[in-house]
Amino acid sequence: MKTVTLAHGSGGQAMQQLINQLFIQAFDNPLLNEQEDQARIPLHLLTQQGDRLAFSTDSYVIDPLFFPGGDIGKLAVCGTSNDVAVSGAFPRWLSCSFILEEGLTIATLERIVDSMAATAKAAGLSIVTGDTKVVPRGAADKVFINTAGIGMIPCHLNWGMRQIQAGDRLLITGSLGDHGATILNLREQLGMEGDLQSDCAMLTPLIKTLHNEPGIKAMRDATRGGVNAVVHEFAASCGYGIELNESTLPIKPAVRGICELLGLDPLNFANEGKLVIAVERNAAERILTHIQQHPLGLDAAIIGEVVSQKGVKLTGLYGIKRTLDLPYSEPLPRIC
Amino acid sequence: MKTVTLAHGSGGQAMQQLINQLFIQAFDNPLLNEQEDQARIPLHLLTQQGDRLAFSTDSYVIDPLFFPGGDIGKLAVCGTSNDVAVSGAFPRWLSCSFILEEGLTIATLERIVDSMAATAKAAGLSIVTGDTKVVPRGAADKVFINTAGIGMIPCHLNWGMRQIQAGDRLLITGSLGDHGATILNLREQLGMEGDLQSDCAMLTPLIKTLHNEPGIKAMRDATRGGVNAVVHEFAASCGYGIELNESTLPIKPAVRGICELLGLDPLNFANEGKLVIAVERNAAERILTHIQQHPLGLDAAIIGEVVSQKGVKLTGLYGIKRTLDLPYSEPLPRIC
Repeated sequence: MKTVTLAHGSGGQAMQQLINQLFIQAFDNPLLNEQEDQARIPLHLLTQQGDRLAFSTDSYVIDPLFFPGGDIGKLAVCGTSNDVAVSGAFPRWLSCSFILEEGLTIATLERIVDSMAATAKAAGLSIVTGDTKVVPRGAADKVFINTAGIGMIPCHLNWGMRQIQAGDRLLITGSLGDHGATILNLREQLGMEGDLQSDCAMLTPLIKTLHNEPGIKAMRDATRGGVNAVVHEFAASCGYGIELNESTLPIKPAVRGICELLGLDPLNFANEGKLVIAVERNAAERILTHIQQHPLGLDAAIIGEVVSQKGVKLTGLYGIKRTLDLPYSEPLPRIC
Repeated sequence: MKTVTLAHGSGGQAMQQLINQLFIQAFDNPLLNEQEDQARIPLHLLTQQGDRLAFSTDSYVIDPLFFPGGDIGKLAVCGTSNDVAVSGAFPRWLSCSFILEEGLTIATLERIVDSMAATAKAAGLSIVTGDTKVVPRGAADKVFINTAGIGMIPCHLNWGMRQIQAGDRLLITGSLGDHGATILNLREQLGMEGDLQSDCAMLTPLIKTLHNEPGIKAMRDATRGGVNAVVHEFAASCGYGIELNESTLPIKPAVRGICELLGLDPLNFANEGKLVIAVERNAAERILTHIQQHPLGLDAAIIGEVVSQKGVKLTGLYGIKRTLDLPYSEPLPRIC
């Protein structure tokens, strides 16, 4: 078999072959290998890890499928895991569902699946249940992937946006907009050279080191809509205002270059490996130092604070404070 | 807003509006309303219901979106719930992820979402977390939906394909191929009149009544690939053979008509509301009678048995026994 055919999505032999020869081999684990219609996870594996089940999902439609720093498969494993992990949970089990376009090469699919398997394995995650659909040529663009993830939240953690209060500080764990700028450069053929690479990463290793740090209120990975979307969600949920300081935002020169070229704001650019964290004022410096010692947090910075007056504001490079609106739309479709 | 735009899939205001004005209102429940990146399900809600977590997913790409007996939304809620429920679990929580094509009318999306909400509500299910992507016109066909579902398997149940042994009987809970024939008739404009309607249904109410019936070995809902695919999976997993009896297969006249017209076999047709159940020989008649008393099982029948000699065979209407192959492909793409 060289390309995906409609038969691979039917309930017949071709689909069984694809499942057995590709998915089961790549994702190999005892729960998946049962091949029932559902994975069955023993309760004691849950109870020993926490007291709340975190459950999240994302579909991935990114174009192009492969990009500097990652691919749709790595993104599908990291992205959903990160959405689980920002609750404090350890992501442990993933479902995985493919929508494939007839004619996709099997080599492309294999490359994606291998990337998913390697990413999951490195993170101690198991892909335990799945689904494959094939649609006729033109009814989808190459491949879309959905993952749903579950994990348990440790009993002592209660991170959440509603914990945020005036006086809290906001941290970012690294430079803004690397993922968005990389995809934009690739898709629009801007031809920017140099240090432009998606930050697509599994954030659990960093988040785990924060489980026993007191003073953390809430965290989010800043994906679509960028840091701007996260601070607007924080503000809306906690009922306070947020003020960011532009001069503190870590931005790589190549990303700044793309933004200046196109008149775009890196605050709105997607990231795939950065956390925005709200922390108690007194804990901010300590937690910042802690994060900067981790490979995923080398460029971490304190970028703003929570204030009693509602609204989201940005103090610009020249000290002028202005309202920071959430744009109606972000610059780029199919960013993730 | 009249149609879905790329802005509805960005991280900006438009997406927030769609989430708040459509999804949150329709699916309204406390876990979803938290609007964190993940639903957080208290552990005690799990432990009180069973000792294994069942976790399943499916993506739905059916064309057309609306059909006699259902729509893609109802299908997305029922299909994944059924995959959870055949383990014996009570499906309780669903994730829901949309991939929307730019230009889809909001009215169509609302109709689908309302159908999902009504189906979930009727079944005591909550849609607790989700995602929305929008792709440019032509990059997907109208709307694809992924759902993942979880629920707990009661401690005393241990249904599974590997429990199946020679001597066991196979039951079907109703007529074969209603869903597949309905979609085929619609898509190929065959113009068959009369009693042609998808059997798309939530099977939990029927399965629940079987929780305390001794003698059940395994069950599957016979979807893509039909009853034929299920019996092949049963045979492959348990290591025995299966013999079906054609004269016992319940098939509605309209479905039989479509099959004769096109030379297709209803055993390969998709169902969306039928279970194949493997039961101990001595329990078969009792369980059949039990199922026939339920509205979802009026046309239930014993259709075959498990035998020691490997392979899947069908005894035809004239008493001739032949090998029943699993086709390489099924008749129709985008059936679910």
